[in-house]
Amino acid sequence: MSHPNDPALRSFIPVEATSDFPIQNLPYGVFSAHGLAPRVGVAIGDHVLDLWELEQDGRLNFDVGPGVFAGRTLNHFMSLGPKVWQSTRARISELLRHDNDELRDNDELRKLALVPMRDVKLHMPTMVAGFTDFYSSKEHATNVGVMFRGKDNALQPNWLHMPIGYNGRASTVVVSGTKVRRPRGQLKPPGAEHPSFGPCKRLDFELEMGAVIGQASPMGGTLTEAQAQAMIFGFVLLNDWSARDIQQWEYVPLGPFQGKAFATSISPWVVTSAALEPFRRQGPQQAPQPLPYLKQMQANNYDIELEVGLRGAPMNNPARICRTNFKYMYWSSVQQLIHHASSGCAMNVGDLLGSGTISGPEKSQRGSLLEISWNGTEPVELAEGVVRTFLEDGDSLVMRGWCQGDGYRVGFGEVEGTILPAE
Amino acid sequence: MSHPNDPALRSFIPVEATSDFPIQNLPYGVFSAHGLAPRVGVAIGDHVLDLWELEQDGRLNFDVGPGVFAGRTLNHFMSLGPKVWQSTRARISELLRHDNDELRDNDELRKLALVPMRDVKLHMPTMVAGFTDFYSSKEHATNVGVMFRGKDNALQPNWLHMPIGYNGRASTVVVSGTKVRRPRGQLKPPGAEHPSFGPCKRLDFELEMGAVIGQASPMGGTLTEAQAQAMIFGFVLLNDWSARDIQQWEYVPLGPFQGKAFATSISPWVVTSAALEPFRRQGPQQAPQPLPYLKQMQANNYDIELEVGLRGAPMNNPARICRTNFKYMYWSSVQQLIHHASSGCAMNVGDLLGSGTISGPEKSQRGSLLEISWNGTEPVELAEGVVRTFLEDGDSLVMRGWCQGDGYRVGFGEVEGTILPAE
Repeated sequence: MSHPNDPALRSFIPVEATSDFPIQNLPYGVFSAHGLAPRVGVAIGDHVLDLWELEQDGRLNFDVGPGVFAGRTLNHFMSLGPKVWQSTRARISELLRHDNDELRDNDELRKLALVPMRDVKLHMPTMVAGFTDFYSSKEHATNVGVMFRGKDNALQPNWLHMPIGYNGRASTVVVSGTKVRRPRGQLKPPGAEHPSFGPCKRLDFELEMGAVIGQASPMGGTLTEAQAQAMIFGFVLLNDWSARDIQQWEYVPLGPFQGKAFATSISPWVVTSAALEPFRRQGPQQAPQPLPYLKQMQANNYDIELEVGLRGAPMNNPARICRTNFKYMYWSSVQQLIHHASSGCAMNVGDLLGSGTISGPEKSQRGSLLEISWNGTEPVELAEGVVRTFLEDGDSLVMRGWCQGDGYRVGFGEVEGTILPAE
Repeated sequence: MSHPNDPALRSFIPVEATSDFPIQNLPYGVFSAHGLAPRVGVAIGDHVLDLWELEQDGRLNFDVGPGVFAGRTLNHFMSLGPKVWQSTRARISELLRHDNDELRDNDELRKLALVPMRDVKLHMPTMVAGFTDFYSSKEHATNVGVMFRGKDNALQPNWLHMPIGYNGRASTVVVSGTKVRRPRGQLKPPGAEHPSFGPCKRLDFELEMGAVIGQASPMGGTLTEAQAQAMIFGFVLLNDWSARDIQQWEYVPLGPFQGKAFATSISPWVVTSAALEPFRRQGPQQAPQPLPYLKQMQANNYDIELEVGLRGAPMNNPARICRTNFKYMYWSSVQQLIHHASSGCAMNVGDLLGSGTISGPEKSQRGSLLEISWNGTEPVELAEGVVRTFLEDGDSLVMRGWCQGDGYRVGFGEVEGTILPAE
């Protein structure tokens, strides 16, 4: 039997070479269709495979109790652990192969279990237990540092020694397509004598990936590299919406709070760590060497192409404002997770770890408007007469990501959000 | 019928004047006894009233579905809202009155529904959805500021304008009695050239109260004073364990992370806002006046006496190291909650808002060892030969709190934690 990652595998379902969802991918999500309750599915080409229907028909012959795929989130399935993730992936791959007649030639089951993507509504894939946001691109941290502290003090002294992060707000992590209301908050622009309360004037996005934690670890325990790696179920695209002016006034000394609390958007399909395995790459060299607890033996990054499009309110289509790659990240998701648990912090199924803004070495690779417009001093022309420094009401921000294989893509789909005016 | 807060009320269950749990209190918790599954109860004197048994017997004649009190947390009950909280409190008060025979004279039901406190195990009262920690004592913020930035820059410029806070880690909020393992982490003491990884050497407590949020508010919405007040189900004592050395090296620029992530302890009984109503007091005057969204019309603090005892490992009994009061807090829990939601941040049932360390104007009123030992420079003698600057392995920290009424106390019980050596 072929490995589910085998580039030669084909499905009986037609999948174009530019599709994000070939048989090598098989990302998990939660969908509803035809007025039925949400359930767990897998994306294949422009269809969704309904795992609940397959389970009901006795086609998922592994150790998953009934109802796991009827859940409104992936949390129950994830909690079953890496062996079940592996056997499920192998079985789904088998069922979708072009040379397997089980599903291919069963008209009735195909009708039940394969739903056209255009007919489904996609929901939050997981119940987010805790949301933690890191700050692990050296280029991003340097850009921000240069802007606010000058070139000589750009990186804080601790940055090269650990993946700096903070606890974010899980209650406002939403799925792609959810509209985002411009937040209000305390603002004290340079020169103002007193703070005032009003709509954010410097609304921004941050291009990130989110690591979805699929296994728990106990309070008081710590993690090895292998344990941390095994706990990461998969990844989503993540937009860490940011109110720069609220953040600027509030963040000393306890870090970002309301400047980040109003919304975080993620893509609906969780691409598994298993599917990303062929795209593992060595990350940037870490110097100074990380302390032993953070040292990673395996190549620790993934080659994921990323792009950001911004459709200014008057435009019909987004203009590309960033093209970068996840491989540039200085600290890996595994190192972030190890550090997160290093004090004895318990990790839960459904925890979400934002990578931090993904910027690359080139100007075209900057993952936020703060960097792209250099703190508002270099406006970007999106189309004739449409110029932006930060996001305006009605603007729509789209992120896409994919791993390019030989003749196929393992893709993430997209995460989109449109800005509503403040209340 | 008397109001449940009436100081003249008496129960048929004997309650001493120094008990934390007279009929005027009626705090909710989750307990187990006799090998049965955890369920919801109310503390009365030195007994626990089993609400599940009362409900089974048809004694809770209000609109609560079956099973609400069989839950392992208060979240379901809290989600039913303030009207149900009020009617439940009134009915329980009625059932426990000295002049009501329903329970008093029903031997069989009393045997089932009243469990001696010594026979029960107390559990986490709520499922903590999000944990947020504020920094709202002016005395504490000033003490810390003087230590680290000098007298002239003690308070950060934003501090007087909003309740500064950060998102904490919900996964390690534990109930009183849970042992706390000394965390390990990155340390870079003054003078060290490189950071190292090892056990925390400056382990501290922080005396706080925790506000338990019992009602949700939607993403994109904001809160009025009345709405915020109505969402606060009650309060617990809260020990925000802190690793000062880990925190010191990691916290710039994104705030506390692993220095606070290893444990937060709370008391098992949630004293309701309703029971605290007679102890509402005006807080310190706020100058400059808060912005309109934060302006509070009602007296915004509570008169809650607080004390902290530290039993050094070789000692038999704790020595008192702090005696203070919740009324000193500059920002109230209502203001914290309004600010928390001000950007459009959704609040969830079970959210927990730590007040921040509660220090008072006097030296004896300092709510952390950092302040008590003035950053380790003024060791405290707990008993002959037992001297502390920070917490040592085997030390046990106990916090107590109560409102003093005329001849009775509305108390919180205690929150205790003992330090285990690092792994």
